[in-house]
Amino acid sequence: MTAQRERIGQPVDALDTPVLLVDAALLERNIEAMRALVLAAPGRNSHAAVAYRPHTKSHKSPLIAKMQIAAGARGVCCAKLGEAEVMVAGGVPDIHITTAVVGRSKAERLMRLAAAARVSVVVDDTENVAALAAAATAAGITLDVLVEVDVGQARCGVQGVEQALAVTDAIGRSRALRFRGLQGYQGRLQSIVELAARRTAVTEAMDKLTRVRDALESRGIACEVLTGGGTGSLPLDLEQGVLNELQPGSYVFMDSTYRQIDWTARAERTPFANALTVLACVVSRPLAERAVLDVGWKAASSDSGPPVLKSSGAAIEFAGDEHGIIHGAAAVARQVGAKVELIPSHCDTTVNLHDAFHLVRNGVLEDVWPIAARGRSD
Amino acid sequence: MTAQRERIGQPVDALDTPVLLVDAALLERNIEAMRALVLAAPGRNSHAAVAYRPHTKSHKSPLIAKMQIAAGARGVCCAKLGEAEVMVAGGVPDIHITTAVVGRSKAERLMRLAAAARVSVVVDDTENVAALAAAATAAGITLDVLVEVDVGQARCGVQGVEQALAVTDAIGRSRALRFRGLQGYQGRLQSIVELAARRTAVTEAMDKLTRVRDALESRGIACEVLTGGGTGSLPLDLEQGVLNELQPGSYVFMDSTYRQIDWTARAERTPFANALTVLACVVSRPLAERAVLDVGWKAASSDSGPPVLKSSGAAIEFAGDEHGIIHGAAAVARQVGAKVELIPSHCDTTVNLHDAFHLVRNGVLEDVWPIAARGRSD
Repeated sequence: MTAQRERIGQPVDALDTPVLLVDAALLERNIEAMRALVLAAPGRNSHAAVAYRPHTKSHKSPLIAKMQIAAGARGVCCAKLGEAEVMVAGGVPDIHITTAVVGRSKAERLMRLAAAARVSVVVDDTENVAALAAAATAAGITLDVLVEVDVGQARCGVQGVEQALAVTDAIGRSRALRFRGLQGYQGRLQSIVELAARRTAVTEAMDKLTRVRDALESRGIACEVLTGGGTGSLPLDLEQGVLNELQPGSYVFMDSTYRQIDWTARAERTPFANALTVLACVVSRPLAERAVLDVGWKAASSDSGPPVLKSSGAAIEFAGDEHGIIHGAAAVARQVGAKVELIPSHCDTTVNLHDAFHLVRNGVLEDVWPIAARGRSD
Repeated sequence: MTAQRERIGQPVDALDTPVLLVDAALLERNIEAMRALVLAAPGRNSHAAVAYRPHTKSHKSPLIAKMQIAAGARGVCCAKLGEAEVMVAGGVPDIHITTAVVGRSKAERLMRLAAAARVSVVVDDTENVAALAAAATAAGITLDVLVEVDVGQARCGVQGVEQALAVTDAIGRSRALRFRGLQGYQGRLQSIVELAARRTAVTEAMDKLTRVRDALESRGIACEVLTGGGTGSLPLDLEQGVLNELQPGSYVFMDSTYRQIDWTARAERTPFANALTVLACVVSRPLAERAVLDVGWKAASSDSGPPVLKSSGAAIEFAGDEHGIIHGAAAVARQVGAKVELIPSHCDTTVNLHDAFHLVRNGVLEDVWPIAARGRSD
């Protein structure tokens, strides 16, 4: 997993494995496809035209964040403060942090960041609001905050109007905090395969969000930004027009899970292509029908199942930290030393295992990009 | 997950989370317990006294490897060439690589390593043997090799006597390779909870290994080293006396999976304590009975299930890349900002997510050690 810069210009099969590959042309195509989709969408909601703020949890790279911004994105999302610090250090000017920043030390780090770039963060707890207000006041910063609403994920977020009002009241008590709007994200519906079932789930989630928005606005609390959504909900978020800022992440790379979902009612797939693979090598073939690869839990994430062969879509079997197995007829043609490309089941967590992207164009290693925010969950 | 050296001397609760903690006293106790166990064991097999060569896949740290060697270990094991390179760079003098090293580029790296330290590697394929022989000859090195035998893992390794003879014949054709013995490791039996059932599985595995050993030795091919075993099989490996070199890894840290296994027929637990935890923080508590932690798939591995609360042993629920949830009555007492220690389900893969160990003694941060071989599956 070390960066192999000395191999730039050589065929990708020359790389020592396992190594994370990015098809440079497909990455560029995915970023352009998102620009075309979102910026071509009519501004149907009552607030503003739809903007997009891609989630960097999928790539953890300031270089790719800046490509997204160059393609019309308003800014980016980061899952954690530590990731946001890496993005700002890498020259990204506008970041929304999609999880709460808790604790005095982190609040102080957040204020240092907000002094250096445009930064917003979600809140869902009155004591956390008070802590951020104290840190912002001490730093002489005005911090943008959005209230996270639980729209069905059953994780973080205010549970309804009453909690939302308690949190917005707490925000209103500090001149160092500026209420910007609401975040409503439902991760579990993103991978519902059938479009109609996903539409029902998106509608339910957006109903929860608009209930809170309407209650706040009826009290004169303007919700300028309604942010959320993902790669799976994208066509429905555009159709429904509730969100005015979209947070798709996985579209830059895609993975075997997202590639399965229908994009239209005719079961057509998404306009995004699998740009991310793990290059593996056959390291043992003790039986004709068992080819053992050098990719296990350390080189491909397992939270969403094993990776699949790029050539056929068939899943491999995980066989420990360092191994995966191709079984059956698919193994027969593969000799020890043969290279095999695998598509991860979950791009975010697979990227988090590696230190670098190896950019490939026309089969040749073009560049090596550090995954600068890898491991920055802090 | 950044190293927080500036917090040395402060209470561990001051650390920004999520962060990987090591209880320094328990780590030292585990290392001493292994020394006492193995070096006190009678040398029952016909080859030599039992030695131990701890597997560094669990800790990925040259500092801990050198503690193990200072406690009587013969050397260490590494899962991969990339890990071995880090160990040698960190001053570890004697390494056995427990998976095949495949491909010309890696063979050349292996020879550079073998010129700098005592190194051995497993083989199970005649073409791989020929490639290593060519690289060793070109480098002017004599390389120690052991033949891996599949003793029931159904992964890598020769499948029986015939394949073993083909591989030892190939080794014998090169003066640059020196056959040292056999490796037989069965990972899946390590976590069988009940001792008697684990004994049956170990016996079956050792029968496969001795069948190959006896066939080789009857042909005059001496198997000096029989290496294998793990933390779960340790009492049985000592009891059976087939292996003369043991490869336990997880005992330095333990995890929730290994802590469940019986060490004696009276269902007594292992002499090793859980020294490794992930320090988490409650970041949201939208309901009295739901406390959301900042530890998800990025800070604790999921391949062997979710981590458990150190306080109660109850599993948390994974809720995405960055979150885990404590449900029910256990959540009620935990306010936003509270710190919680989690025991990983699998130490190897959890360590692989982090950049540093934060050593704790008496509740105070004592030191920060880099996880120098993190991500080095190459």
